[in-house]
Formats: sequence, C-alpha cells, structure tokens
Amino acid sequence: MNIEEANRTAVERMTAARPRLTGIAQAREVIPGMRDGLLLHAGPPIEWARMSGPLRGAVIGALIFEGLAHDEAGAVALVERGEVAFEPCHHHGAVGPMAGVISPSMKVYVVEDSTHGLRTFSNLNEGYGKVLRYGAFSDEVIAKLRWMNLTLAPILARAVDLLGGIDLRALIAEALHMGDEGHNRNKAGSLLFLKLLAPAIAGVAPHSKIQEEVLAFLGGNPLSVLNPVMAACKAMADAAHGVEGSTIVSAMARNGTDFGIRVSGLGDRWFTAPAQVPDGLYFPGFSSADANPDIGDSTITETAGLGAFAMAAAPAIVTFIGGTPQDAVNATLEMYEITAGEHPQFTIPALGFRGSPVGIDLRKVVELGITPRVNTGIAHRQAGVGQVGAGLVRPPMEIFEQALVAYAERYLDDGGG
Amino acid sequence: MNIEEANRTAVERMTAARPRLTGIAQAREVIPGMRDGLLLHAGPPIEWARMSGPLRGAVIGALIFEGLAHDEAGAVALVERGEVAFEPCHHHGAVGPMAGVISPSMKVYVVEDSTHGLRTFSNLNEGYGKVLRYGAFSDEVIAKLRWMNLTLAPILARAVDLLGGIDLRALIAEALHMGDEGHNRNKAGSLLFLKLLAPAIAGVAPHSKIQEEVLAFLGGNPLSVLNPVMAACKAMADAAHGVEGSTIVSAMARNGTDFGIRVSGLGDRWFTAPAQVPDGLYFPGFSSADANPDIGDSTITETAGLGAFAMAAAPAIVTFIGGTPQDAVNATLEMYEITAGEHPQFTIPALGFRGSPVGIDLRKVVELGITPRVNTGIAHRQAGVGQVGAGLVRPPMEIFEQALVAYAERYLDDGGG
Repeated sequence: MNIEEANRTAVERMTAARPRLTGIAQAREVIPGMRDGLLLHAGPPIEWARMSGPLRGAVIGALIFEGLAHDEAGAVALVERGEVAFEPCHHHGAVGPMAGVISPSMKVYVVEDSTHGLRTFSNLNEGYGKVLRYGAFSDEVIAKLRWMNLTLAPILARAVDLLGGIDLRALIAEALHMGDEGHNRNKAGSLLFLKLLAPAIAGVAPHSKIQEEVLAFLGGNPLSVLNPVMAACKAMADAAHGVEGSTIVSAMARNGTDFGIRVSGLGDRWFTAPAQVPDGLYFPGFSSADANPDIGDSTITETAGLGAFAMAAAPAIVTFIGGTPQDAVNATLEMYEITAGEHPQFTIPALGFRGSPVGIDLRKVVELGITPRVNTGIAHRQAGVGQVGAGLVRPPMEIFEQALVAYAERYLDDGGG
Repeated sequence: MNIEEANRTAVERMTAARPRLTGIAQAREVIPGMRDGLLLHAGPPIEWARMSGPLRGAVIGALIFEGLAHDEAGAVALVERGEVAFEPCHHHGAVGPMAGVISPSMKVYVVEDSTHGLRTFSNLNEGYGKVLRYGAFSDEVIAKLRWMNLTLAPILARAVDLLGGIDLRALIAEALHMGDEGHNRNKAGSLLFLKLLAPAIAGVAPHSKIQEEVLAFLGGNPLSVLNPVMAACKAMADAAHGVEGSTIVSAMARNGTDFGIRVSGLGDRWFTAPAQVPDGLYFPGFSSADANPDIGDSTITETAGLGAFAMAAAPAIVTFIGGTPQDAVNATLEMYEITAGEHPQFTIPALGFRGSPVGIDLRKVVELGITPRVNTGIAHRQAGVGQVGAGLVRPPMEIFEQALVAYAERYLDDGGG
C-alpha cells in the first residue's frame, strides 16, 4: 500500500466528481434510512443531553414543523420521553448548514454525481434573519418553512425538471471567478442559480403573484445556492471516501458541541473533540460571549477545496468576516501546504488561475501544525435567538492527531506504508 | 483661477452624481433634439464618407429598422441623397456601445441624476453574436431589434416603474466586488440587474411565455446592464463637464475612424485623431487584419473610473482580453498616475478597497506620457460582419496634446493658472 498513490486516487475521485442538481423531493421519500421520528442534524453523532442551544432550538422547531409538538415544552417532553431519534446528516448522504436539522417532511435538494453513482441531499436555504438553522423556532420561522415546503419547493422541483438539472460544478467554478468562495459568500453563485431557474420558474409557477414571491425570495437571498453547493461538495467528498490507505480528510463537520472529521482510509469512524468559538465580526449588540461553539456541516465546502480554502477568490468577503484582502490570499496559500492537490475546475483568478487547494492530508496537518481554515456563521449559544455574527475558525488539532494514531494502528502495524 | 481647485470640483461633481435608471421610452419622445431623419452615432462627429464599415453597417440596419429602406442599397441611396442627418450621441445626452447608432423609434434607457438634475440615455443591449452595434444588419438582427422594441422594452419599462427606478451607482459598486470592471465584464452587474427586475417582470409581463423569453434574454446576456451603466457614466461625466479651468477629461469616444475627447474646462469642442486598432484576442478565424479601428461610446466607463481603470477588480477578465491577473492590477495602478481622484463609491477589494482611479487629468497624461487604458470589443472592419474579438487600446497621445494647447490658449494667455 502506497500512501501517496492512495491519496492521488482519493483527490482524483474528489475532483472528477461532477455533481448535478437533479431534483427537489421530500426527505422521507429520497434520503436513505430517513423515517418518521428521526431527525438528522449537522456534525458527528450527539445525544440530546450534550446538544448546544442552537441545535436544540432547531430540533424544537423541526418537531413543531412536523406537527409532533405544539411548542417548546411539548417538543422537549417528546425528546425526553425518548420518542425522537437523532442521527447525523452525514450518515444519510446529506448535509445541512449550521444546526443542519432535516426532518422527514422537509423538502430537500437531490444532487447526483453520475461519475461515481452517488446521490446526496441538502435542505432548502431560509435566508438570513430568524431561521431554524441558527436555532430560532418562532411562529414566523415555522411559517417560512411551511411556505418553502408547500410553495417554493414544488416550483423549484418543476423548474429543475424543466431544465433537466443544473451542473453545480460548472456553477461553482463560475462563481469563484465572480468573488465567491462558496461557503460564507455565495452571492454570485446564488445569482447564477437564479439566472438559470428564473425562465423555468416563469414557465411552471401557477400564477404571477407566486412567481414574484419565488423570484424575490431566491434573488433576495445571497445564500440561496449554499445548500445545493454543500450537497455537491458532499458528493465530491464522498467520492474520495473509502480509498484504502488514504490519509485524505473526507468530511469535516460540527454539531455545535464537537468538531468531527472522517478520513478516506479509516472507514466511517469520526474523530472528535470540543468545537471552538469562531473569531469574527459580531452584529451590533452581540459579542463572543454570546457565541455558540462552531456548528454545521458547511465545512464540507472546505473539505472539497472551497470556503476558506478558496478565500483568495473572494477578497470582498473580508468586510463580512474581518481581515484584509491580503489575509484572504494568505489563507489560500497556507492551505496549499496541507493539501494533496489543486482543483482542476475550481480556479482562482487572482492567483493566476491556480486551482484551489483540495484534499486535506492528515499527515501534513499534523506534521506542519497547520489545521484547516474554516469560514463560518456564528450562532447565539441559546436556543431560539439566531445568528450573531460570522468569522473564522479552525478545528482542534487533537482530532487530526487521533486520526493519525488510528491510521498507524490500522495500517502500519501490519508492515504496510 | 486655480486648476487644482477646478479639478477637485469636477471630480467631486463626477463622484457625487447618483444616477438612477428611471424609465425606458422611445428615443424620439425623450432624447432632446431627436427627430425623424436623424441618426445618433458613437464618438465625435463624422460624415458618411469617412465612416468605417461597422458604423455604416449599423446605419444601414437602423434605416431598415425604421422602415426607411428595404435593404443595403436602398439605405445607402437614402444617405447619399442627403436625407439622413448624423450627430453624435454625446451631443444629445446619450451614449451607445460600439457603432452606438440610435434611431428615433428605438427604445432607450432613461437615467437621471437628481444631484445635478441631468438626464442621460442609452439604447438596449442586443447580446453577443450578430448585432447592429457591431455593424451587422441581416434579417435576424433587425428581427431581434423589433422584438426588443416591441416586447422587451415595454415590459422593462413597466418593471422599472413598479420598482420606482434602480440605483445604478449602488449596482456598479456591488458589481465591482463581484469581479466586474463595468465595461467589457458586466457579468455580475447584469445578474444584479436581473435579480432586481425578475420579480417585477413576473408581475407585469402579460403571460408566462413572454416572461420566460424576457428572463432568458436578460439572464443569458452578460452585457445586459452595460448600456444603463454607460448612461450612468455619461451622467457622472456630464456632471463634471463645464467646470471653468478644469483639465479633467469629461468624455472619451470613438466613431470607428476617430478617437475624440472633451475636456471639462474647454466647452463642447472635440479633440480628435485617428483611432487605433486594439490589441487583443481574436475569435477563431479572425486576426488584427480583420479589425476595425476602435469604436464606441463605451469609453465613457473609463472616463468615470470603470473599465480598464477598474481592471484590478476583475482579474478573470484576462481570459477574455489577454494578459495576466497581475497585468490587471498593474493597469489600475498605472491609471492612478493620470487621475485626480479616487472614487468614494467604486472600491476595489483586491487593492484593500481603494477607490478606483477617477478623473483623467489632461496635464498628467501629457506630462507622464501615459494615455488612458481602454477595454473594448473589436468589430470587423467590413459592414455586416460583427464582432471578431476583444482587447485593449489607448487613445492617441496627440488628442491630449491638442487639448493642452487649447487649454493654454484659452486660459493661460490671460494670466490665469
């Protein structure tokens, strides 16, 4: 077994994936293993007792949305009676930003990579403000989720059908030339998504009032495309997973309590440690004292060479998360040190169209003492509040060290390597 | 009279302008001095005998579009009988890309700057391919112009009304943070334009088939917003025009034969010299031997601090016009040397959000021997062909020298300065 060769294979599989958005459907109908009474969540596995405020808030909201509880107390009682099961999105081919809660009735994006025959999923993006993914669950939050499920999703589903799908890899590549990094900044990508969908929406929406609502909602949300992009990154990362002997990181995810990673050559085991509070810019009236530790599956973008890894493509992002444009370039340059490849499709104009750094090599992280950079939103630590800022975070070094020990135990004891 | 102070005033007026798109109307109804039998064209004044191929082609197409001729021979005969008058767009508060031909029946964008009480105009953008502005006049060109006039324009007009206008300065500022330079690259700006218009179009279009057509046309044309942006730049530049003693260039424009400039403190006089053939990238099968000399009013964008002046905002443009991303940064840095100010709204992320170089100072151009840089499309030299490439060009130094001599004659002889 040759590690370099295994890693080359993993990175080639990751970058050869060509995920397309092919549909929008109800979670229980398309997500493998989804069932009534099950809620999916961001990050590695976690039980209710250890869940942070925003994840608890999203769980409460999802139970109200499902009609299983009328209010917070009812939802908590249901959970405490053991009537709700929790499993990571990642165990079901899915990803969700921030709390990442997906319940059986929610509509989800379906993404397919025909190169490797993989299907992945993500929920719909709610926009900014009071939203479930940041742990808010007020009536307006639930009402918006219902509108998204009953009005938006069926129209999107018909529009995507009419278009015969959307090539997400091409969309991401184009957005990187328009100042996006694909994680915190998806402004251009969301407009490209709108551009593709708008004529089809006009064709399928039942009447002009609803067309106006849908076009205004999609166009007004600079994160509209984040969730399909995350599902695309999940498809790319999953394509790289399971390569015997590979030290490439195939998932990074946080549940608001723990930061976890998976490694291509180490099966489905998570390596976890407590998640950190991000460094960043806070909305007026909030500070790091209000911040929950890092949360969300959106680190799948960094896993696939986007987000903080592609910061050099997005100098304007520094107005949102702090720092200077030179910091943005430096962030990408640093990530080349811990990655095994450069993405052939995701290129960065400001670096002379160099491919973004892709395929985090566990060994390099530990040897160089450089953990991956992550761009992120910041949730309030209490359930029901919502977003308080955005910033930068790094996973704890400890999880990479754990993984390297596990790798040695798995591979090196039998004389390989 | 203090030159520095005059120039400060001119640049302050240029950057204080806040042009808004307020309507779409027929040229003969809104453009001052527009009348039947008159065609407006790009650049400084020119008579038929000296017009280049693409401008002649656009004149022929416009006469067919107006129903004044059936074909090329009929159009040429009409012109040669002296029945068509030609005047620059610039003499009527208007601007048009490439040939820039505006005929009385064409629908035009109306842009207003309430700060200085100015109104400016531009025609609608036809997209890429066989188009009038590059001198093509085949049946499909005329058919598209008719569709734009009869279908697209009335819907845009109602949509803009419904929105209460569009703040073009804000749109340009946002697009510069998304990889546009506002002249050759208006990809992000056109998507922002679509985003604002789409819900309103859904509200006003008579039925869904037409909505689909309009949304697909606007979304499919990465230059959709170029013409309103040009009219906005014309409003900014006109606000800076007519400041006694100022050496700031208030217009740069080419008619395909001559490159002309106007200067704020030198009234309505044009300083002209033969236009150059741009350096650039050619479409397959074409070379510089096919290229017409530089043509179009779109240099109004450079006059207002965009286009080649804002190249550092648009590293991806080099795939379209040649060069490296570092050349793009260097282009902007060079333009700071010949400008009097930095734009407070138009900022460039990659330069640490420094304002784009704005207000070309005639004196600096001549003293430093640095002519303004211009990004441009390249038209075939023959009427009826169309675009053959895109590239970079500079105006002849001679016109700045002429203007400086005129300035000396006008101001310095009476002991001022």
